[in-house]
This record gives sequence, structure tokens and C-alpha cells, in this order.
Amino acid sequence: MKNLFLVFVIVFLFSCQKREQNKMEFTREVAEVMSEIERVEPPNWFIGFKDSSLQLLVKEENIGASIPSISYEGVSIEKVNKARSNNYLFIDLKIDASTKAGKFNIDFTFTDGTKKTHTYELKSRDKSSDDFIGFNSSDAIYLITPDRFANGDESNNINTALKETDIDRSDNYKRHGGDLQGIINHVDYIADLGFTAVWPTPVLLNDMAESSYHGYAMTDFYKVDSRFGNLSEYKKLADKLRDKDMKLIMDQVANHCGIGHWWMKDIPFDDWLNNQKNYEENINNWNDETNIGSNHRRTTNQDIYASKADLKGNNEGWFTPAMPDLNQRNPFLAKYIIQNSIWWIETLGLGGIRQDTYPYPDKYFMSNWAGSIMNEYPNFSIVGEEWSYNPLIVGYWQRGANNRDGYESNLKSPMDFPMQKAIVEGLNEQESWDQGLIKLYEGLANDFHYASPKDVFVFLDNHDKTRVFTELWEDVSKVKMGLSYMLTLPRIPQIYYGTEILMNDSANPGDHGLIRSDFPGGFKGDAVNAFTGEGLNESQKDMQSFITKVLNYRKSSKAIQDGKTIHFSPSTGTYFLFRIKGDETVVNIINKNDQPITISLKRFEEVGLDGKKVKNIITGDTFIWGDEINLSEKGSVLLTTKI
Amino acid sequence: MKNLFLVFVIVFLFSCQKREQNKMEFTREVAEVMSEIERVEPPNWFIGFKDSSLQLLVKEENIGASIPSISYEGVSIEKVNKARSNNYLFIDLKIDASTKAGKFNIDFTFTDGTKKTHTYELKSRDKSSDDFIGFNSSDAIYLITPDRFANGDESNNINTALKETDIDRSDNYKRHGGDLQGIINHVDYIADLGFTAVWPTPVLLNDMAESSYHGYAMTDFYKVDSRFGNLSEYKKLADKLRDKDMKLIMDQVANHCGIGHWWMKDIPFDDWLNNQKNYEENINNWNDETNIGSNHRRTTNQDIYASKADLKGNNEGWFTPAMPDLNQRNPFLAKYIIQNSIWWIETLGLGGIRQDTYPYPDKYFMSNWAGSIMNEYPNFSIVGEEWSYNPLIVGYWQRGANNRDGYESNLKSPMDFPMQKAIVEGLNEQESWDQGLIKLYEGLANDFHYASPKDVFVFLDNHDKTRVFTELWEDVSKVKMGLSYMLTLPRIPQIYYGTEILMNDSANPGDHGLIRSDFPGGFKGDAVNAFTGEGLNESQKDMQSFITKVLNYRKSSKAIQDGKTIHFSPSTGTYFLFRIKGDETVVNIINKNDQPITISLKRFEEVGLDGKKVKNIITGDTFIWGDEINLSEKGSVLLTTKI
Repeated sequence: MKNLFLVFVIVFLFSCQKREQNKMEFTREVAEVMSEIERVEPPNWFIGFKDSSLQLLVKEENIGASIPSISYEGVSIEKVNKARSNNYLFIDLKIDASTKAGKFNIDFTFTDGTKKTHTYELKSRDKSSDDFIGFNSSDAIYLITPDRFANGDESNNINTALKETDIDRSDNYKRHGGDLQGIINHVDYIADLGFTAVWPTPVLLNDMAESSYHGYAMTDFYKVDSRFGNLSEYKKLADKLRDKDMKLIMDQVANHCGIGHWWMKDIPFDDWLNNQKNYEENINNWNDETNIGSNHRRTTNQDIYASKADLKGNNEGWFTPAMPDLNQRNPFLAKYIIQNSIWWIETLGLGGIRQDTYPYPDKYFMSNWAGSIMNEYPNFSIVGEEWSYNPLIVGYWQRGANNRDGYESNLKSPMDFPMQKAIVEGLNEQESWDQGLIKLYEGLANDFHYASPKDVFVFLDNHDKTRVFTELWEDVSKVKMGLSYMLTLPRIPQIYYGTEILMNDSANPGDHGLIRSDFPGGFKGDAVNAFTGEGLNESQKDMQSFITKVLNYRKSSKAIQDGKTIHFSPSTGTYFLFRIKGDETVVNIINKNDQPITISLKRFEEVGLDGKKVKNIITGDTFIWGDEINLSEKGSVLLTTKI
Repeated sequence: MKNLFLVFVIVFLFSCQKREQNKMEFTREVAEVMSEIERVEPPNWFIGFKDSSLQLLVKEENIGASIPSISYEGVSIEKVNKARSNNYLFIDLKIDASTKAGKFNIDFTFTDGTKKTHTYELKSRDKSSDDFIGFNSSDAIYLITPDRFANGDESNNINTALKETDIDRSDNYKRHGGDLQGIINHVDYIADLGFTAVWPTPVLLNDMAESSYHGYAMTDFYKVDSRFGNLSEYKKLADKLRDKDMKLIMDQVANHCGIGHWWMKDIPFDDWLNNQKNYEENINNWNDETNIGSNHRRTTNQDIYASKADLKGNNEGWFTPAMPDLNQRNPFLAKYIIQNSIWWIETLGLGGIRQDTYPYPDKYFMSNWAGSIMNEYPNFSIVGEEWSYNPLIVGYWQRGANNRDGYESNLKSPMDFPMQKAIVEGLNEQESWDQGLIKLYEGLANDFHYASPKDVFVFLDNHDKTRVFTELWEDVSKVKMGLSYMLTLPRIPQIYYGTEILMNDSANPGDHGLIRSDFPGGFKGDAVNAFTGEGLNESQKDMQSFITKVLNYRKSSKAIQDGKTIHFSPSTGTYFLFRIKGDETVVNIINKNDQPITISLKRFEEVGLDGKKVKNIITGDTFIWGDEINLSEKGSVLLTTKI
């Protein structure tokens, strides 16, 4: 009996617990679907940020006529802001440091006494802010145009609810079907090449009538484009990369949205967009003529003599009529963009952000944006796109610059367009006093100006530029020179997908659609498969192998990642660059001579290699660094003392 | 009697006074010729400098074996330094602040008891240090190659005691006979053109076998080349310029001397020259092969990755085998150069120094050199020649630069080679998105980097560069565009002699001898006389008139000299630059359209000219600044509100 009673009690208790659990789960489920509100953004938030403020954008018909209330420990409404449109509210919340993760209702009480409710969640965070380690000079970044890399899920190719419904691989400006699952499927390939980070161009919703494949005309800053996949797949990609110690870099756009953006039908404020009045007045006749386009005079950001008209023309003009220019001087928009970035960092556990069109938004906003992110995540990384060949401008944008106007960008990594140009020009030109390799040498000499050269982001090409194989007149040896030089520099290097198999746009150099061609093997029925090597020619295989060797060496090379740099001015068609850290010395030699040449090594005495054994990273050959070196063929020689 | 006595007394007193006077004068004359020493430099010094130190170089056979002594109130010997060569002594003197001007003997007592004496003079100064006002943005500088400008004294054409004895106007690399007196004769012409400063290329002794006309291979840093004149004429030129409120700029060379320099026969120290050992070992077979020439890799001065070998190669290599490279890290040489500069400033009452080949000497010496001068003469000006098209490098050299390596050059004015290139390229190129006038606009935008843009020294050409009329394909309207733009910039502008009459080197562009052609009218028998206008064609007369008008306007234009700058990005082949100070607004319009064009002025609203009367500085026409402007022909339009 005693035992039976015990069993009964246990069963009773268990049953009670089960019911309680069921009740909780029921409540949670109810909470998850409980929204009578069209849109609340950010869709959730997190506890434990340094910045205790959170501003919710609430969109719902006539919501401006309601009074919101919240009852959750540690969360208080600081201010409720109405907008021009009565269908918006911007609610300033304060999240106390002690606030616990959980869900709570936001109740909106209307003047007539009716109520609407939205359940909001504060999530706990997977890791501490300090553990978000951004890309750095130990990384090598693989840049992918997702629509063109690999189609991992054919079921998502078409979404008839969206404006661009067709898929057409014969048209370079149409969607080709590549997606997040395609990248996920080939993470191993990317990792094996030796890359440690992946930057896919944007995958958020681009519900645009044309050219939606490129992703830079976002129509929802919180939603993955269904043709690329969904948030869960985006997370899966991040997780898979993290599992392989790789970083995911998200491509974000603070400057503009796509004209199909949901808020374009009901713009919250009259200064939400730049030149908004002009847009609203011409909305029924909206085209290149009526649009006030950007003058693209980006130097107005620095120029102490720039007219106000020109500065405004750059910052407030629209990129195209299809890309409304966001007015970051509207504080609600500014906060929206900053929170959006933080939400994605936290949600995906990002290893970096690439920010598009950096010099087009208001530069003080950009400083605030980057500063807010870096304040939350001190070890994070952001790279900003300023397409300038002027190192003065590049230097201006980097965190820690000694700018005379006192501007502090908070941007870790500006892009090295000057070096990209120097490498391409220098490799193509005939050697002479001021042409050829001297361009590389003097380009690198400009590093004296940068606050942190090793945080500058370098590349030979990208999705907007003619592919390097085309730029270098399809000379494989020059591509190797460029790559091995770039990968030995004190920089963060990026390589565009397909460079490893010599993809090119030679048929129509500079054509964006062609630059972003399909990666062979990524699509059903491809005759060539670069992932398996099937159908690749010898040059392509050789380049894959070359990149794999260099990147995999670089991955553990402290000399390249963090070493001292010494270089010697080009001479007799050769250029020697040394990277040194402790016992490890890496030597990159560019040799442009068509005929074998012997170079005296006496000039490099100060590097201290005399008598040391060095290994060719590509061939594996070793030899003793002595009086001279024989260079048999044109190309790159990459040596290390780490045998 | 009483009267007679009085007369007698007066005569007696007068006679006593006269004798006393004669005695004094006799003493002075004796003192002036009293030297048993071959050479003491500086040949005299001055009282009242902030720096109380003076180091005398004494050259005399076996002088190293002597002990010098001085007995003069306020002058003491601090240290006596022997050299490698026993024929030198370097005596460190201290000149007390209270020291009076006057002469004194320096007695050299040899070990055998014999003595040699040299009378040295400390002169009083004509004006205070603060009154040496260097060139600045209120000035316009006329650059002259003295051998080619005007032969004012045919008696000095040939000095048979010197190595280059012939004169041959048919050979552009031989001397042509121009001289200081030639410049003196034409100061009025230069002043009437509107220039306020003259920079003649060097006129010190160049006792060289070849090409001595250019003056950059000095063989005595204290002596005027007799073929140019003498010190008294140099002073006369300075005085005449001063009388017209104009400044004399001296062209100095700290980097090298000429191989015929007097000290080359008996080099004081074994480190007086760079690569001296190599020179001394190969002295009997001295040529391009044995010489260790500079590698001319000037970026090594800034490059944080430069090898020691390259830096040494730039700074220590010789310019040519005929130009021994001075080692400014030898403290005696350093002091010698600094004192030499100060001696000339004081002796001529200079209004500026132009320092040759700035990035070739040791850069820390150059900072010390310029710093020493600016310390004595806080309002003085120095312009340094760094031939770099990279604004990063130009900015690095300017006083007040925020250099990351902490380098402070003390140099007021770097040379604006980047702007020179931008103007020439921009005017020559067809207009497009990134070609043409945008080069000028973006070139000027780089000013954000400079510590003091208005102190940067700008020019369209000089004695080393193809003449601008040739560079601009002999298009007079483009020369006007370039000149009026340059002369409206926040800069110190320089124009090369003969630009006003469209002198050119079109027959062989870039040929140094041709660039430095004879100025017509400067030489006996010239068929054309640009000074009088005789024989000039209409274009030449028009250009003389154009320059005269612009420069004479500029001379009193506070807007140009010190005004605010606003410019507008080029559009429809035009580029508007505004300079504004108080009531004065100057507008420079470059118009590249071949056909008449009407430009809306609405875009320039922020300048505040609407409804104001403006005058065309060249034509004198006035009109009201309204909705639009009609530009009838290609060229430059220069307007002012100062009627």
C-alpha cells in the first residue's frame, strides 16, 4: 500500500507538472502568434546590450491614434512618437540591465476604448559581445553573388507573389536561381580553398520588377528573399561557417532601399527620404527625368571648398529612380538602420558587415552607425565601400585617421581601390622608371598615411569590376603575381568567386551581368563542375591549386597576418616583398622577365635570410638563401622559412 | 685777434678730428685686408640672432696644428674642432646677446710659436628678424633662368679663369650671357606685369666644365658666379626689388655641390660626402659607372616599409657624378649649410628661399635646416621642391602636417606638382564623367589634407618642365584658363618667365635647354623685344595684357589672397570657382565649350551674388548677376564684385 501510495503521489505530481508545462507551452504558442499589428520592427530584441534603448517601429492602420502600454519587469516606455502617417508609431523603450529574456504584450488602446495587442520577445544572447570577432588580417574572404553561385534548392526558384517571376540563365540581368542552400552545399569547397570568411552580396527581399538578382534594392530590411531561401537557411549558413571557424559577412545598405520597399506605399515621415517632396510630386510620372539623381561627387564629403549644393547633390540625390535615398538625418530612420544592423549581427552571429555605397549617406550618420555597432561589439569588423582611387580619401574613412576636420568614421576597414588599380596597372604596364611594378611599390608606400594598413580591405576585383583575369589580358602568370602579392600584403584580402577558375568577362569587359556569371557546377546540367574539377582545363585546375596553396599557407602565417613589412624598389623586372614575424619570413617575388634571370640577393642583406633554408610554398622545393637566386620563368615566387 | 684765435682753434680741432677719423679709417682698412688665412666661412656674421652659436670653417694649410684665440667682448671660443684634413679647423663661437658690431682678429698660434691672423667682422643688422616677410598668398612669383633672361653686362660674359669659357647662344646647353644686371634692368617690366616676387635660379659660382648655365652645381656657396655678376649686383637687385615692394627669392641647394667645388680637392672629413669612400677610391676613374647614383625613390622618406637599402639609395646616392652628395649627418656640414642660408637671408634681405631637391638630403636635417631659419625669421618663407604628383607626399612635407611618424618639416610651402598635372591634364582632356575639368575640381578637393593650402606653391610649368603653352598644344585660350584658375586659387602662384609671351619648347618638348630659351629683347641684336613689345605677335601681346590684368587685380584682392573658397563640380563643360572676402567676390569660370552657351546661375545661389553688379576683370564689362550667364567663347572669364 505504502508503495502504491508512493506511486500515486509520483504520478499525481508528474501529472501536475505536465499540465503546468502544457499550460506554459500553450501560453507561449499563443504569444507567438498573438499579433493584431501589421508590423513591429525590429521583430524581436535582445537583452544585455550596453545601449539600453530600443525604438520600435509599429505599423498598423490608425495606430497613431492609440496609446501603447507594456507591463514587463525592466521594460518601460520612455516616449511614444507619432509620425506624419497616422499608421505608424515609434515607441522608445528602455530595457534595464536586469531585464530577463521573455515575451510580453504591447497593448495599444485606441481613443474609442478598443485594444490591439502585439506580443514582443526579448531574447537572450548566445554569446557575449566581445566574442563577436570580426574579419581581420588573418582572414581571406570569398565574395559571392548568390544568384550566380549555386542553386541548392530549385523549389525556391520562383515566387509568383513577387514582381520578378521568371528565371532565365540565358539573360545575365535576370535571376539564375542561385541561393543560400547553394552556398551551404559548398562551404567545404570554399573552406578547402583556404578561405576563412564568406561575403555573399545581399540576400534580403528585393521585390523589384527588374534586376532583382543583385540584391541591392532591398524592399524589406528584415526579410530574406524567398528566392534565396529563408532566415533559417541564412542561420544554417552562418552556423555551418562557424563550425568550420569561418566568418559570415553580411552585405548591408544604409543609403537606399528599393522602390518596391513596403514603406514606399505609406511613407512614415515627410523627410524619411531625401528629395521626398520631389518624389511625391512626381510619383505618377516617376522616371530618370523627374528623379533628382545623385551627382556622385563623393569628394564633397571631404572637400573643404565643396558647395552646399554639390554636397547635397551627392548625399541626397537618388542612386537611381528605383532606389529611394534614405534620409538618415531623420532620427527615426537613423535608429531603424542601426537597430537593423545590430539585429542581424546578433541573429546570425555575424563575423562582419560590408556596408554598400559608404560615401552617399550623411557621413555623420555613418560615423554614428559604425560607432554604435562597434560600441556594442568592440571586436567586430565593418568594411565600407568607397570607390575611390585616391588614398587620401581611403585614409579619411578609416577609424583613427588624423583628419583635419576631426571626422572619426569608426570604420575599421575602408576598401583599397587604389591598390587594386595599382596592381592591375602595374602588372599590365611595361617596366620603366615610373611604370610597371613601381606602381605596386609606390602604392604600398602610401600606407604611411593609413591609421591601420592591415585593416584595409584589398581585392583584385569584385562584383562591380571587370574580372582580374580579363583585366590582366588573360595572362595566368600575371593573375598569380597579383594574387600572391595581394595575399602577402598587410591587408585583409578578398577574392571574387570564380577567380580560382579564371572566370572572366572578356566577351564584354565591365558588363555587370557577365562579371556575375554562373559558377560552373552550381547549376543542374552544368557541363563543367568546378567543385569537383570535372571539365576544368589545366590552367583552371592549376589556378585552383595555386590559390589553395597560398591561402592555406596564409591561414597559419603570423608573418603575413601580423608581421613586419619590408620591400625593395623594383629592379630589373622584379619586386621583392618580405613579411617577417619571429622565425618566419615570407618572401614574395614578382618576376616579369620573359627570360630566365639571376638576381643578386646582396641587396636584401638587411632582411637577414643569408644562409637560411627557404621553401617555395607552391612547388615545395627548398634551397639555401645565398648570394643569388635564379628565376626561370615569369610569375610569382612565394617563399617561406617555415619549412 | 680774438676772431683769428677762434678760427685757429676751430681749424685745429677740425684737423684733430680729421686725423682721428683717418686713423680709424686706416685701422678699418687694415682690418679689412688683414687675413693670412685662405678661407674663413661664413665670411662675416651678424649680431642679434636668437641663436648665439656660430661655427667658423677655417681653411689654411696645416691650420689644424694651430690654436685659435679671440679677444673681443662678448665673443668666446666654445670649442675648436679638428677635421680629417689638417688644413681645416671648425671653431665654435658664442656670440653674447650684448655683443656689439665690429671687427676683431682671430689669432692662430702654431706649435712652433708662429702666428697667423684673420680679421673677422660681426655686422649689425639692417632690420629686425620679424621684418623679413617671406612670400605668401598675396604674392605672384616670376621665375627666371638668369643666363637666358637678359644680358645686362656684356663685360662679364666670359671669365677665362673658369672652366666653361665659351658663350654660344646657338647651343641651348651653353651659357648665353644673361646676368643679374639683366634682371635689374627689367625689374620694372616684371613689376608692371604685376609680379611681386622674383625667383632667379641659382647665381652662385658654378665652375663646372659643362652646363654651368643652370647653376645647380655650386662650387662656392658664398660667391656669386662672375658671369652672372657679383655680390654687389645681387644686393642691387634685392634693393631694387625691395624699393618696388617686391621680394627676392634665392634658389639654394643643400643636397649637393658641383664636383668643381673648392673643398673637393681637400675634403675636410671622411664623411663630408655620401658614398665618399667610393668616390675617393675611384677618383681617377670617375664616371657614371663608378658613381653610386641616387635611386631617386623619394617615397622612401615616407614609406614605413622602405628597406634601409632603398632609403640610403635615395638619400645618399649622387644626383650625377658631377654633383657630390653632401652628407648632412656630418654636424659640421649641417651647420655650414644652415649658416650659409642665414648669411644670404641677412646679406640680401631675402624674401624667401627656394630649396632644390628637397627629398634627397636627410629629412631630419631638412627639418632642422628649415626650423633653424624659421626660428630666426618667424615670418620668412621657404618653398621646397618635391617633384611628386601624390598629394599625400606634398602634404607630408608641409609645416603642421598630421604625420603619423611625427615628422615636422618646418617647411611652409611644398610645391604643388599634383595641381600642375591636374590643370594640364584636365584642360587637355575631353570632358567626361571622370576626365577634363573634374581633374581640377577633384585636385583642389584634396586641399582638405593640407595643413595650409594657401601656402602651397603652385605653377603651370617651371625650368624643369615642358612649357605650359607646349603642354596645352599651343591653345592660347587653354593657357588663359590655366593661368586665371591658378591665379584665383588659395595658393602662392609662380609663373615661368616668357609664359606671358607664349614661349614654348614645342620643337622638342621637354628639352631642358629649349625650355630655358632666351627671352627676346634680353640680348643685343634680338629682332623681337618682349620688354618693349616690338615684334611681338597679337597673341603674345594679348597674353601679356591678360597676365598684367589678372596679376594687377590679384595684387590688391583680399578675396583671392585670403578669401573663402567655394567651387562647384564641373557641368556642361564649365567650372565655377568663387573666392569671397567681405564685399569682394571673385568668380573664375572656365568654359571649354566651342559654341556659345547659356548657364543657369541658380545653382550658385548660396554664393549670394544674385542682383549684384559684377565686372569682367579682363574686358572691364559689367553686368548684373542674375538668372543666367551667356558664355560666348571658349576660355576663361574672371569676374569681381569690386567695381
